[in-house]
Amino acid sequence: MERRSFMSKASVGAAVGATLVAAPAIVQAQPTVRWRCSSGFPKALDTLFGAAEDAAKRISDATGGRFQISVAPAGEIVPMPQAAAAVQAGTVECSHTAAFYYVGQDPTWALGTCVPFGMNFRQHNAWWFEGGGEKLFNDWLAGQNMRYIISGNTGAQMGGWFRKEIRTVEDIRGLKMRIPGLGGRLFAALGAVPQQIAGGDVYAALERGTIDATEWIGPYDDEKLGFHRVARFYYAPGFWEGSAAVGWLVNNRAWGALPPEYRAIFTAAAHEANAGMMAKYDARNPPALRRLIAGGAQMRTWPRPVMDAFFRASRTMHTEIGAGNANFKRIHDHYAAFQRETTSWLRVTENSFDDFMAAALRG
Amino acid sequence: MERRSFMSKASVGAAVGATLVAAPAIVQAQPTVRWRCSSGFPKALDTLFGAAEDAAKRISDATGGRFQISVAPAGEIVPMPQAAAAVQAGTVECSHTAAFYYVGQDPTWALGTCVPFGMNFRQHNAWWFEGGGEKLFNDWLAGQNMRYIISGNTGAQMGGWFRKEIRTVEDIRGLKMRIPGLGGRLFAALGAVPQQIAGGDVYAALERGTIDATEWIGPYDDEKLGFHRVARFYYAPGFWEGSAAVGWLVNNRAWGALPPEYRAIFTAAAHEANAGMMAKYDARNPPALRRLIAGGAQMRTWPRPVMDAFFRASRTMHTEIGAGNANFKRIHDHYAAFQRETTSWLRVTENSFDDFMAAALRG
Repeated sequence: MERRSFMSKASVGAAVGATLVAAPAIVQAQPTVRWRCSSGFPKALDTLFGAAEDAAKRISDATGGRFQISVAPAGEIVPMPQAAAAVQAGTVECSHTAAFYYVGQDPTWALGTCVPFGMNFRQHNAWWFEGGGEKLFNDWLAGQNMRYIISGNTGAQMGGWFRKEIRTVEDIRGLKMRIPGLGGRLFAALGAVPQQIAGGDVYAALERGTIDATEWIGPYDDEKLGFHRVARFYYAPGFWEGSAAVGWLVNNRAWGALPPEYRAIFTAAAHEANAGMMAKYDARNPPALRRLIAGGAQMRTWPRPVMDAFFRASRTMHTEIGAGNANFKRIHDHYAAFQRETTSWLRVTENSFDDFMAAALRG
Repeated sequence: MERRSFMSKASVGAAVGATLVAAPAIVQAQPTVRWRCSSGFPKALDTLFGAAEDAAKRISDATGGRFQISVAPAGEIVPMPQAAAAVQAGTVECSHTAAFYYVGQDPTWALGTCVPFGMNFRQHNAWWFEGGGEKLFNDWLAGQNMRYIISGNTGAQMGGWFRKEIRTVEDIRGLKMRIPGLGGRLFAALGAVPQQIAGGDVYAALERGTIDATEWIGPYDDEKLGFHRVARFYYAPGFWEGSAAVGWLVNNRAWGALPPEYRAIFTAAAHEANAGMMAKYDARNPPALRRLIAGGAQMRTWPRPVMDAFFRASRTMHTEIGAGNANFKRIHDHYAAFQRETTSWLRVTENSFDDFMAAALRG
């Protein structure tokens, strides 16, 4: 058989020896490439920002330092909202960002990150890598001379911080909540008044009562902004971000100019960082949640009728968006079918195991 | 700032141009390494076996074909139970396998894959990569001249196939069930009689009634063996394998002889395949489950008192194992503390989101 034709152990040993002798030659022969990455995240969101640094380090290590990607925080090269345009134009080779930041330009962008009541981390990866999601999304994005290589996820986010408890659907009406994107549109559908406020200004707005609520990410990131001191009710789950995939938006011409080895290394490092970021959040969120509760946060889960109302509103919203945007409709239909089938499987064993363990370890 | 000192776009373009010119030189300069991998899995378990092939292909692509790993199915080079010894001795450089296959030699091996009522996929990754699990396990394994680089997971497995329904804990007593490892020991604690039967012989044993039940993996793999035709009750969850991490067992001398670039490439490719296998199972299991149900499988969840009895037995078992094995105790104590903390977080938002979606999409 073919594999038996590979050299024996003795010759493998010889090859490894040859490796060490040949190593200095690599240093001279490999090409030098320098890319700039305009991150979609500030350095303070160190788990999100750090995934790009982790991947860039792996790429550098895998190429003996010859393929270097410098990762600049949002705003340092171009303002975050212009990063996609900068990648498209080739001003920077890439941005590590959340696709759904560009949902205002085209709602189809959302499907690179998440939609309300969408798939969890595992489902999104299965859809993207195995279900055909990556091809659908990148075929669409090729029209803008870019590709999106997913590389990080927050998991299910929290539902945010509220100054008053939400007891009924009526409590959503008139609520001034800092929430962008499709999540904001969903809250608006139930009568809330979504606010667009920069992260650094949210604490003061909550403290003064200019706004009633804010969503952010999860315990680890939320803790840094201290929201629990000015809006103590902390709701779960963040149903508009059941997971949130981020990734590398790469200029297709720069991508095509890379040697195939560097494309393989970039892809492996990006995908490694995809689950790597999830592991970081899963390790960092639990102690942060404990500290938040010790600091006065009051945990709440959404009343079921409130969740149901938002769920119904999300279906209406996706139908409306699809009616006006054929690309969104085509990809979202595919996404929704995959979600339905995988959900029916995951509840059989994953969810039932998780629910048992949550109950068993609580005691 | 440092990143501004990287070359401008114009010079990046020049570097990319230089890359293409220099490419032929790489072919001659990079060292050639050939490794043999004795997989712990037969080719028929194509998702498990395939993860090693996926990683090997990425490694080859990332090195222009100069670092090649040939993956042989279990038994082709050495019988599966001897693969770890072959790696330790350097007969092969590596094996892609499940660490817990070696639990008979030392129960500490289990912690590289899973323990009964252990962590799910996300928790295991968080513990391994961020919680200190990898270091604890590999510090122990270094005494055997090996390291374990995780590279694949099955997720929560199914609880297996039963000829008769399990209604009470009493139904476990005397049950002849094909179940190896710590899962088998757990069933024995409740009075079952674990059987060690090779995969290919299980169907006939079930059909003849020589055994009453068997566990295997999940819908996609189970379907191929046709168990639903001879033992129609299909139980969930497989609480003794709430996730099951597999990985590359690598000879430390062979590892140390690799150039650092190849070590970085191997690691990235292995970790990419870790989540890659999970995505494959999550895409392949749902349609397989549908086909199994159409083919007569009767889905059952364990009665809560049965789960509770097994859970209590698992705690006793882990305490007993730890009393006789300081390495197991030290690493398992660390594992269990991490599990408890992350479970308390995941139930807040991940589980509540998953449970809502399962209910919402069922309708």
